[in-house]
Amino acid sequence: MTPPRKRTSSTPKPKSSTKPLSRGQLADLDAWWRAANYVSVGQIYLLDNALLQRDLVPDDIKPRLLGHWGTTPGLNLVYTHLNRLIRERDVNAIFLAGPGHGGPAVVANSYLEGTYSEIYPRITEDAEGLQALFRQFSFPGGIPSHAAPETPGSIHEGGELGYVLSHAYGAAMDNPDLVVAAVVGDGEFETGPLATSWHANKFVDPTVDGAVLPILHLNGYKIANPTVPARIPREDLVSLLEGHGHEVITVEGDDPASVHQQMAAALDTAHDRIRAIQDAARAPKSKRSKGSDAVRWPMILLVTPKGWTGPSTVDGVQVEGTWRAHQVPLAETRTDAKHRKQLQEWLASYDPGSLFDDEGRLVESLRALAPVGVRRMSANPHANGGLLRKPLKVRDFREYAVDVASPGASVHEATKVFGTMVADIVRDNPSSFRLFGPDETESNRLGAVYDATDKVFAGEILPVDEHLARSGRVMEMLSEHTCQGWLEGYLLTGRHGLFSCYEAFIHIVDSMFNQHAKWLNTTRELEWRPPIASLNYLLTSHVWRQDHNGFTHQDPGFIDVVLNKKAEIVRAYFPPDTNTLLSTMEHCLQSRHYVNVVVAGKQPQFDWLTAEQAADHCARGAGIWEWASNDEGDPEVVIASAGDIPTLEALAAVSLLREHLPELRIRFVNVVDLMRLQDEKEHPHGLSDRDFDTLFTRDKPVIFAYHGYPWVIHRLTYRRTNHDNLHVRGYKEEGTTTTPFDMVMMNDLDRYHLVIDVIDRVPALGSRAAGLRQQMVDARRRAKEWTREHGEDAPEVRDWAWNTGVGDRKSPSSTSTSETAADFG
Amino acid sequence: MTPPRKRTSSTPKPKSSTKPLSRGQLADLDAWWRAANYVSVGQIYLLDNALLQRDLVPDDIKPRLLGHWGTTPGLNLVYTHLNRLIRERDVNAIFLAGPGHGGPAVVANSYLEGTYSEIYPRITEDAEGLQALFRQFSFPGGIPSHAAPETPGSIHEGGELGYVLSHAYGAAMDNPDLVVAAVVGDGEFETGPLATSWHANKFVDPTVDGAVLPILHLNGYKIANPTVPARIPREDLVSLLEGHGHEVITVEGDDPASVHQQMAAALDTAHDRIRAIQDAARAPKSKRSKGSDAVRWPMILLVTPKGWTGPSTVDGVQVEGTWRAHQVPLAETRTDAKHRKQLQEWLASYDPGSLFDDEGRLVESLRALAPVGVRRMSANPHANGGLLRKPLKVRDFREYAVDVASPGASVHEATKVFGTMVADIVRDNPSSFRLFGPDETESNRLGAVYDATDKVFAGEILPVDEHLARSGRVMEMLSEHTCQGWLEGYLLTGRHGLFSCYEAFIHIVDSMFNQHAKWLNTTRELEWRPPIASLNYLLTSHVWRQDHNGFTHQDPGFIDVVLNKKAEIVRAYFPPDTNTLLSTMEHCLQSRHYVNVVVAGKQPQFDWLTAEQAADHCARGAGIWEWASNDEGDPEVVIASAGDIPTLEALAAVSLLREHLPELRIRFVNVVDLMRLQDEKEHPHGLSDRDFDTLFTRDKPVIFAYHGYPWVIHRLTYRRTNHDNLHVRGYKEEGTTTTPFDMVMMNDLDRYHLVIDVIDRVPALGSRAAGLRQQMVDARRRAKEWTREHGEDAPEVRDWAWNTGVGDRKSPSSTSTSETAADFG
Repeated sequence: MTPPRKRTSSTPKPKSSTKPLSRGQLADLDAWWRAANYVSVGQIYLLDNALLQRDLVPDDIKPRLLGHWGTTPGLNLVYTHLNRLIRERDVNAIFLAGPGHGGPAVVANSYLEGTYSEIYPRITEDAEGLQALFRQFSFPGGIPSHAAPETPGSIHEGGELGYVLSHAYGAAMDNPDLVVAAVVGDGEFETGPLATSWHANKFVDPTVDGAVLPILHLNGYKIANPTVPARIPREDLVSLLEGHGHEVITVEGDDPASVHQQMAAALDTAHDRIRAIQDAARAPKSKRSKGSDAVRWPMILLVTPKGWTGPSTVDGVQVEGTWRAHQVPLAETRTDAKHRKQLQEWLASYDPGSLFDDEGRLVESLRALAPVGVRRMSANPHANGGLLRKPLKVRDFREYAVDVASPGASVHEATKVFGTMVADIVRDNPSSFRLFGPDETESNRLGAVYDATDKVFAGEILPVDEHLARSGRVMEMLSEHTCQGWLEGYLLTGRHGLFSCYEAFIHIVDSMFNQHAKWLNTTRELEWRPPIASLNYLLTSHVWRQDHNGFTHQDPGFIDVVLNKKAEIVRAYFPPDTNTLLSTMEHCLQSRHYVNVVVAGKQPQFDWLTAEQAADHCARGAGIWEWASNDEGDPEVVIASAGDIPTLEALAAVSLLREHLPELRIRFVNVVDLMRLQDEKEHPHGLSDRDFDTLFTRDKPVIFAYHGYPWVIHRLTYRRTNHDNLHVRGYKEEGTTTTPFDMVMMNDLDRYHLVIDVIDRVPALGSRAAGLRQQMVDARRRAKEWTREHGEDAPEVRDWAWNTGVGDRKSPSSTSTSETAADFG
Repeated sequence: MTPPRKRTSSTPKPKSSTKPLSRGQLADLDAWWRAANYVSVGQIYLLDNALLQRDLVPDDIKPRLLGHWGTTPGLNLVYTHLNRLIRERDVNAIFLAGPGHGGPAVVANSYLEGTYSEIYPRITEDAEGLQALFRQFSFPGGIPSHAAPETPGSIHEGGELGYVLSHAYGAAMDNPDLVVAAVVGDGEFETGPLATSWHANKFVDPTVDGAVLPILHLNGYKIANPTVPARIPREDLVSLLEGHGHEVITVEGDDPASVHQQMAAALDTAHDRIRAIQDAARAPKSKRSKGSDAVRWPMILLVTPKGWTGPSTVDGVQVEGTWRAHQVPLAETRTDAKHRKQLQEWLASYDPGSLFDDEGRLVESLRALAPVGVRRMSANPHANGGLLRKPLKVRDFREYAVDVASPGASVHEATKVFGTMVADIVRDNPSSFRLFGPDETESNRLGAVYDATDKVFAGEILPVDEHLARSGRVMEMLSEHTCQGWLEGYLLTGRHGLFSCYEAFIHIVDSMFNQHAKWLNTTRELEWRPPIASLNYLLTSHVWRQDHNGFTHQDPGFIDVVLNKKAEIVRAYFPPDTNTLLSTMEHCLQSRHYVNVVVAGKQPQFDWLTAEQAADHCARGAGIWEWASNDEGDPEVVIASAGDIPTLEALAAVSLLREHLPELRIRFVNVVDLMRLQDEKEHPHGLSDRDFDTLFTRDKPVIFAYHGYPWVIHRLTYRRTNHDNLHVRGYKEEGTTTTPFDMVMMNDLDRYHLVIDVIDRVPALGSRAAGLRQQMVDARRRAKEWTREHGEDAPEVRDWAWNTGVGDRKSPSSTSTSETAADFG
């Protein structure tokens, strides 16, 4: 094996541009920090007396004290110092608060910068506005206690910990001038998603991407415990961070003056390093240094006490510098005069009289410290991506559509064809679209994208590697969490993307999806946040084709998680063939402010619809396939499907029925857009009852072959007229299998079982159908025995093809079981 | 702040006991390794000709080639060398294959050790058995291609990557003599859950826990990409691993002889270190060295080529040592004679004639290399926890029950009382029960457990810390993934545990739950694997009381994920008060082979049932509360509830109705065991239709107040006679709020809305109810205005209490909104 390169960096170490802060600068920074701390404490506690112009009385204090003080002074410190850097160097920066539960800090700074009042005119820059700001915090009808969609400058909620670095790296992509300052809490440091997201620095391309500046804030404690990184030997922590490829700049102390000096120098140094790395990478080729491309991005390790500047002890117990400062250090301020006095002293310690004038307006000398206009991190448009979002250029899907002479006459791999469309999207949107996947792009057959671009990697690249380069549009790391976080960060800053993932393992990011969906839900109501691009999932390598990987790779339940979110923001699509996949993706990729889940297999499968038919069918979302039906408007039974494999089996069942019971009037309905099943009152895509009844009848048996857990169809349709006649076949958690048809048989979703279902539910068939029923039972047994004997599906299954001339079968050029082992992930 | 300790270790470095392998030892090890590789390749390819006694023909080869070769030779190498260590030192060890998709390796070794044939007598130790072993691998009706429940010696599937270290550490807990060898793949290394699980070594107590020996296998590639750790500077990788607190022993090469020597020495050294650490910790106190307790556990960094010993190139392209070796290196062996010849050469390269005798039995000299009996890793009972599991000692819950004079006359915090029960379980099961939680044990009010034990932490402990010690039964790290992995490992090795978690964030482990549920599902069918203890979740800090943390902390959907799994293994409970929680937990903690999800709030709430009533109600799972009903067996409306807050609101609605419409005949039904709602044909706990109708009637309106997403109730009951009359109120994703009653109002689950629901659904009430309906509308508006004005719930809500004497209200001693800020997480 090639020995890995040494840790040398080719980036020339710049001369340090740092010099100590002057006394005036120090005083200014400290004053801003005190103002931010004051406004933070005020939010947690005060209903009235916002400028502390008299002694606190019980009614000045909120009856329910909610909020997190512990992390807040640290966030304020970082924000304060970033503002100095921004002003002095005209830096384009945004701020991501990993400890986003420290909402008071982010709100305080955006208020001090004036942005808050611009967005929310009710919150004026005077005593009245300050009081309104305090009152609304974590108060009924007010704002959340965390940094949230409502918070100007935020693209990161921080309610659930672990995603700040992946969000930050997603934001930095294709924003060459942006610096994303990302505060990582030392509690968050312990989460899995955060732990691996340190590696995201190996996927930065300094020629086109901006920089992430991680700031690990070691305040030592979580809710009720010390944090791990604070209690391992410091040299271990530094070793760990350096092992992640960072240059670590440490700032440590509890004396404000010392910490201010250190922090200012640390930010100057970090920014020097960032510029040097970027300058080196962006220099004309001839001027770039030879040798290794490895770079060591700077990061800051900030060590200050939890709840710094808050009450040192309360009721004789140490609070500052312990976990007891995590939330509200003085809990009984309304009822306990001693606590109230201590709160008053605490607030007074920031000397509000020197920070705000008599009208309650921030004094002029401090106002001058804020960056100007969009340089304010709270007003930076990158933190309000809808402002920057431009439509994605997507060509008409018909350019990529496959020719379909007649239904089922040809075979394609849907995702492989879609790959050619993605390649053009990459070409047409060279700096605003990326494809994300956990080492699965090739496995999911999107390889055509490599005709247009490469996978980004900043680590060592060897001659054996394929499609791996310093620059590219494909992001692959074996971490669903990081892929999801990157994509969220990329979308929230106004760009477009697609996450392709194995269906089963998308559950890994259930909770991240939940948080993003809540973000979308809330921002729908915020007019100042225009819509962003939809989060698009392409789930392939799905439950029905895990004959290689087995039971652990079978789980179609992500849809269930998605459907629990607000109807206005979630969509689920099950395109049954290549052209419907293309049409669906054309739509989804251009949509705004949704989460679109598209489930489509990567294996060869029959083409059912021409491009025009696909466009029409996808526009309707659900419809009768006349060519598969013989009901002439008056069916005896409806056979319906959603999903590629269920559609294949359902059509095979139809062909068996039409061959053996030609007089049975069958209607075939296919559902692409699952939300069509729901009531129009429940979902914007929902069919009216009348339209639903027109498709599914009011009283005929409906056999529904569905991709996922059968419950989903019932929960979407339980209010429909004909629901009592609806019989759903889907996935049932039956265990491992190793051939495609064995898999559908194991779950009773196979053609033979669907025929039996029809016979059992159409009593009018009577004894006519008894023979066919037994044939189906026998056919299933034979199919099972064949696989046990031969290790593959029986020829009559493998070679089946749809043909409208009943009984006249022809084999497709390729079959659905033609894959080789290399096709599997 | 106290400066962190230095990285010094007090453990004396032992003299190394390693010496080079003799020529004979080396030959033996290499022969076993070759045998394991041969049996691995045979599984992937061969249907016949298992001993390669003639040239391969197409029919010798499986028609579908499925499996993962790339990781397999590395796993075989590790297993081979562990066996030497076990024999020479009588080590008690188990083997966890992080790259569990390398199933052929684990199966091969358990076959060579004889265990496989003992468990599956059909797979004999001769040519016929070998052929059957080969055939069954990833073949219809056979075994999965991954290490799986079916694989002897496995407690870890490896289908989904990321959990091998947390499983390993869970297995090692309270097994002082056990060494858990855990192979971490370098792809898996990139996942979030794995990345943070390195920190699990800070939670090992060497006095009572065994050791985990992590072996990071750097073979360089994933499915289609190089791995990150293989392409960063080696010194960065070592720095990172050392930063995680390990002593790193590197083994590297592609020359088998050299690697064998290195690997043997590495294992000897690692085992020496482990013993030294344990000896030092277990020495009598007087003999222990003073100073720091910090230890540096050893780990091995193993660097060998992917697909080592397999085809070097195929069709002119490099395969060995690249990602192309990930799955099946020669894909066309059935149809392509050149490939087939290459396969034959590959198999022959292991010299099977020297490994197996003419009957196909492993030669005697190799048989002697296997450890004996339960020392074989494939037969170690720790990898079949049901064999070791002893019943958990749980005292009668009545010992902890609260006195309930009459329904709603008193108030308790259910989880706080339950904490006293957990304390006794800890006392009564001092080495077989642990409590797991992500920094939330105190926040979830289980603090009473600290009367009996402490939280384990091997990092630095300061005087300010509380309940933190080197030894203890409470495991807290801010990683739901690690908590879940620990607990799974602990249960799978025969012990008991409880995971307490915020409800919203349990979604973080959705996918881990899925995998564990699949394991339970499969092992139900394996007689040789006796049942293990249930995986118990206590979800508190639930959706209805996130008035502090807001929208991000609201998600009751874990239940939906759980219900998708096989009915036989999942249970969900919603105890409405303290005594029902105690009774439920008494049952769950003693149950076997289920996943039990218990949702119960931590806030003060009314007591409804006495201990005896609770026992009876929980045994039924669902029942009529006569004291709240006035239907005299013939209700006009049924009001039902599941969950503590829904029960409170539903009872408040009942009291309003009984006060204002005393002639309305109301039945009140409470559901503790959600599975009772389902059909008895669908779930073992399901009520018969007859019993269901007896509770819910066949035709009366049912207003159901439910804890989670309302769909769940519909999906469980859609086949019930009275389903069309079922109206469910539950959680609706409406956004942030900050008082308890505002929260229920926002979701239309409040008492006033429930009264309106009843009025709207009982037409017989006619105009009698019009006045009350308007009153309810007004009351809601007033309640909303009050919170907006005062920041807390209106007095009539806050002070409401149940009283059977309608109109005669008395306040409870404490109310449901009495918490202080410190109560929140």
